[in-house]
Amino acid sequence: MKIVIAPDSFKGSLTALEAALAIEKGIKKVLPEAETVLVPVADGGEGTADSLVAATNGRFVDVVVKGPLLEPVRAAYGILGDQETCVIEMATASGLNLIAPEKRNPLFTTTFGTGELIKKALDDGCRNFILAIGGSATNDGGAGMLQALGMKLLDSDGKPVGFGGGELSRIAAIDESEFDARIAEAKFLIATDVQNPLIGVNGASHVFGPQKGATLEMVKVLDRNLAHWADLIEVKTGIRLHEKPGAGAAGGIGGAFQAFFPAVTKRGIDLVMEYTKLGEKLEGAKCIFTGEGQTDFQTASGKTPMGVAQEAKKHGQIPVFILAGSVGSGIDQLYEHGIHSVHSIINAPMTLQEAMDRGAELLEQAAEQVMRTYLASIL
Amino acid sequence: MKIVIAPDSFKGSLTALEAALAIEKGIKKVLPEAETVLVPVADGGEGTADSLVAATNGRFVDVVVKGPLLEPVRAAYGILGDQETCVIEMATASGLNLIAPEKRNPLFTTTFGTGELIKKALDDGCRNFILAIGGSATNDGGAGMLQALGMKLLDSDGKPVGFGGGELSRIAAIDESEFDARIAEAKFLIATDVQNPLIGVNGASHVFGPQKGATLEMVKVLDRNLAHWADLIEVKTGIRLHEKPGAGAAGGIGGAFQAFFPAVTKRGIDLVMEYTKLGEKLEGAKCIFTGEGQTDFQTASGKTPMGVAQEAKKHGQIPVFILAGSVGSGIDQLYEHGIHSVHSIINAPMTLQEAMDRGAELLEQAAEQVMRTYLASIL
Repeated sequence: MKIVIAPDSFKGSLTALEAALAIEKGIKKVLPEAETVLVPVADGGEGTADSLVAATNGRFVDVVVKGPLLEPVRAAYGILGDQETCVIEMATASGLNLIAPEKRNPLFTTTFGTGELIKKALDDGCRNFILAIGGSATNDGGAGMLQALGMKLLDSDGKPVGFGGGELSRIAAIDESEFDARIAEAKFLIATDVQNPLIGVNGASHVFGPQKGATLEMVKVLDRNLAHWADLIEVKTGIRLHEKPGAGAAGGIGGAFQAFFPAVTKRGIDLVMEYTKLGEKLEGAKCIFTGEGQTDFQTASGKTPMGVAQEAKKHGQIPVFILAGSVGSGIDQLYEHGIHSVHSIINAPMTLQEAMDRGAELLEQAAEQVMRTYLASIL
Repeated sequence: MKIVIAPDSFKGSLTALEAALAIEKGIKKVLPEAETVLVPVADGGEGTADSLVAATNGRFVDVVVKGPLLEPVRAAYGILGDQETCVIEMATASGLNLIAPEKRNPLFTTTFGTGELIKKALDDGCRNFILAIGGSATNDGGAGMLQALGMKLLDSDGKPVGFGGGELSRIAAIDESEFDARIAEAKFLIATDVQNPLIGVNGASHVFGPQKGATLEMVKVLDRNLAHWADLIEVKTGIRLHEKPGAGAAGGIGGAFQAFFPAVTKRGIDLVMEYTKLGEKLEGAKCIFTGEGQTDFQTASGKTPMGVAQEAKKHGQIPVFILAGSVGSGIDQLYEHGIHSVHSIINAPMTLQEAMDRGAELLEQAAEQVMRTYLASIL
């Protein structure tokens, strides 16, 4: 019996690969002869690089770049098995997780490190890029990334401005003359589910600013600054980002890609499905185990189990079982999308910490029991 | 599709009937046309009377009797659907749960109330008795029960002794002359899994005394008193209870039944299986849902799910799914006994209190998901 195991990570507890291994262990306890195919998956957020690198037998390159507050951080980009596609998770260089909560302030945080990662991968020969832009700490419209790649952002005295969303208002001119020429020869695939415009009440600052540490007052400043930045870009490139869907992704870096990069955008989960070739791997599978930390009403909007279920549907309704750390409300809608059932891995009253500490064991046990129940009617 | 739903109670959260209804609701969400047969079950412990009364369309009779410390308690006995069998749970009159922990002391606690229940049922015309003797607070060798039924236990001055395990040493003579004559005409079926002898290191006092509030010093006194009591009974009846298996059940009341009642003993779960006619109800069932508060290594030793699984095996390996509040260690041994899988109803990290408060909802959801997974391969 062929069984595909395609979980996301269980954040704070297990990477997607660790999760897949635990599920496999549980299944093999019941059916040692099962043919298991492990496909650690991600939805375009954290773990996307891991997932693509693992699926293609690629590798990671470790580098040190400037973090969101310009401090040095250890980051990495992935080179896929084709040896020419580079996958970058923006959060590894410019992520919210890199800053202690009390220091989060999008007036200062910059995407500079993300630009550095791109530069290093260009130096490495890469011309094909996948950028997963979830989890950013920034609201700088991608200005820092551009600065790292040679774009000169000058104040009214012709001097370079500083970094962060607070500096955008000081920009008087954008000088492309030293912008890295290799960008134009490259291809950029941006993985994002965010469709927000750059500015306004649905824009980057208003919608995502607060979770990055912005106060209400700061949100107003940030939004005004992004508007100024978009005005300059419109004059420079003719591209109007203000209301453009997706321009507000990741603090406006989505807009920078649209204006200055040969970039196309794709939903995270679709991109991951494509690169992991999950579809091909489902051929002949009898059932599919997926999983994630929390399954609830949000799962239906493009999270990993949904992507897996969509692929499964194309292959003739292979049943998909979700194993989740927590099961929340609103899961009924999942069934029409090809999810067959949703089981929690929690096996007794316990704290979140205990559940996380015992993640592998609980996931293994849950997989075993679901497999047992599934087999009840066919053995 | 016929599905039998035969759970035990989820102690502190749901009665067996409430549990069965919650499971049914979950199943019907997936398969509204399922033919569900509800058989709330118990293993001879708490809920046994509920289970038998429900299974036979019987009724309960409420009475007030003396509790384990002689205080008045509201208790009840059940009359089964045959209108002549009485089912009594000893714990409702003489149970540990009736006493605050700091007042538990088997030197004083008496089985008098259990005797009163029998007397009232005899008055009511019952001659066929089922006694579930789990959960007792007592270690009086059944002396209190006998006293309530007219047995005179006299000290060396010929005066009646008092109540509780501490008084047994004062008994000099047993006078049966006024012992309720109807006992001899009746039949008593004692539901117990306990095989301990009356006295010694494996006896009632040593093994069960401490959980009833006895200190080490008290255990020694209680054991010595039971030995004296057994000596008197041996002289009186010729029956030697000292080492007799089962005589140590429920603080020695098991011995009193053996010596003075026309009684036979049966394993609790077997008795419940017989009276609920679970076997007949399994005819044609496609699968069985059972459940209990905690499933672990102890489940294999005669708890409800095991009884259900044993019946299921007789009907051609109908798959049995356990839904449990908590899943503990040592469940692997259950599979060889006909249990197919064990799923926890807990769906996220939470406290025991929350799990108990949300018992019905969690059980319904778990039943639904297990049903979904089970159906995955046959629909």
